[in-house]
Amino acid sequence: MSQPSIHPAIALIRQRFSANHFDPTHSLSDADIRELVALATRAPSAYHLQNWRFVAVRSPEPKQRLRQLAWNQPKVSEAAVTFIVCGQRPDAADLPTRLHPLVETGHLSSVQLAQLQTAAQSQYADARMARDEAIRSASLAAMTLMLAAEARGLASCAMVGFDAAGVAEAFHLGEGDIPALLVAVGQAATGNWPQKPRRPLAQVLEIL
Amino acid sequence: MSQPSIHPAIALIRQRFSANHFDPTHSLSDADIRELVALATRAPSAYHLQNWRFVAVRSPEPKQRLRQLAWNQPKVSEAAVTFIVCGQRPDAADLPTRLHPLVETGHLSSVQLAQLQTAAQSQYADARMARDEAIRSASLAAMTLMLAAEARGLASCAMVGFDAAGVAEAFHLGEGDIPALLVAVGQAATGNWPQKPRRPLAQVLEIL
Repeated sequence: MSQPSIHPAIALIRQRFSANHFDPTHSLSDADIRELVALATRAPSAYHLQNWRFVAVRSPEPKQRLRQLAWNQPKVSEAAVTFIVCGQRPDAADLPTRLHPLVETGHLSSVQLAQLQTAAQSQYADARMARDEAIRSASLAAMTLMLAAEARGLASCAMVGFDAAGVAEAFHLGEGDIPALLVAVGQAATGNWPQKPRRPLAQVLEIL
Repeated sequence: MSQPSIHPAIALIRQRFSANHFDPTHSLSDADIRELVALATRAPSAYHLQNWRFVAVRSPEPKQRLRQLAWNQPKVSEAAVTFIVCGQRPDAADLPTRLHPLVETGHLSSVQLAQLQTAAQSQYADARMARDEAIRSASLAAMTLMLAAEARGLASCAMVGFDAAGVAEAFHLGEGDIPALLVAVGQAATGNWPQKPRRPLAQVLEIL
């Protein structure tokens, strides 16, 4: 670091850009993919539901299948792996299993667990809220995944241009899985745009 | 670092936890807040629309107002600042302004800009897609903000338990602003839970 006062994570956040061109000869191992997804799941989720699922599309045939469903964007197949990041509509019935470790350690009593379950049931009875939560959890995890990739010296690109229903069918996603975004991860090739300038802060921030 | 091979950003991702207790005597300056939000806006967004807005709630009165609308959760007012992170339904009419810097640098031709605008118009004509995009952009930015806070030695907590319509009204949010989540940021106090264990990877990852 030329400026030792800048935390390397801040530097990563500042340098990350959305790559459009990836080295098609570069690949990632199962272990690499597992590590990236393990890091992605460190993202927070409401009620600790961890309502997400990741399909790592790495082999040629599924990559072509996904690319066709994603406006034929070359990066889908040229990146080492393209993740289908799914969120899931929260199901309050999952809470006891998901929070079991916290009951075991005594952080959560069974009475508190029951209260949380009632709250989640009521909150997600609203269909829009349930879908929002699926998109939110998937997005929080996807962002974490992209920064983890950056820390590994990899480039990434989030994509929303795809046929979600087609992807769900072609990749046999579960009924509750909502493909929220695709994330291509690999080695950047030449020809990528630099990071795009951001709107002035005054347009997006209000301090009260 | 005890293990020099671990990138500090990976260490941050691994250590981050959702704080419930914050030091109520700790505060953040306008400059601190601006820096966190500037980093948050380094998140990617579809069509580079940057369809987000941040209200940094830092003063006692607005904090109390927000807390009442967020199930009276103490952390809303105890944290140095609680951000209302809003996403906005994408408006294709914003594209020329948002992408202007790329036209200026010659990365994007006016023909390509027009094509992108047509694509965005068509994509977001679907109301659900438009709302999804608001939630997605806000969540990507919120996750970046939380990791930036972590890099600054601060704790954070994302919250979805709040009255979104009430917040929109009480904080005079714009018509297009959808409060997607609250993010409390501050100095962790004692009594926080450790990071919660995650689901086994085999339950959430499929490699194709």
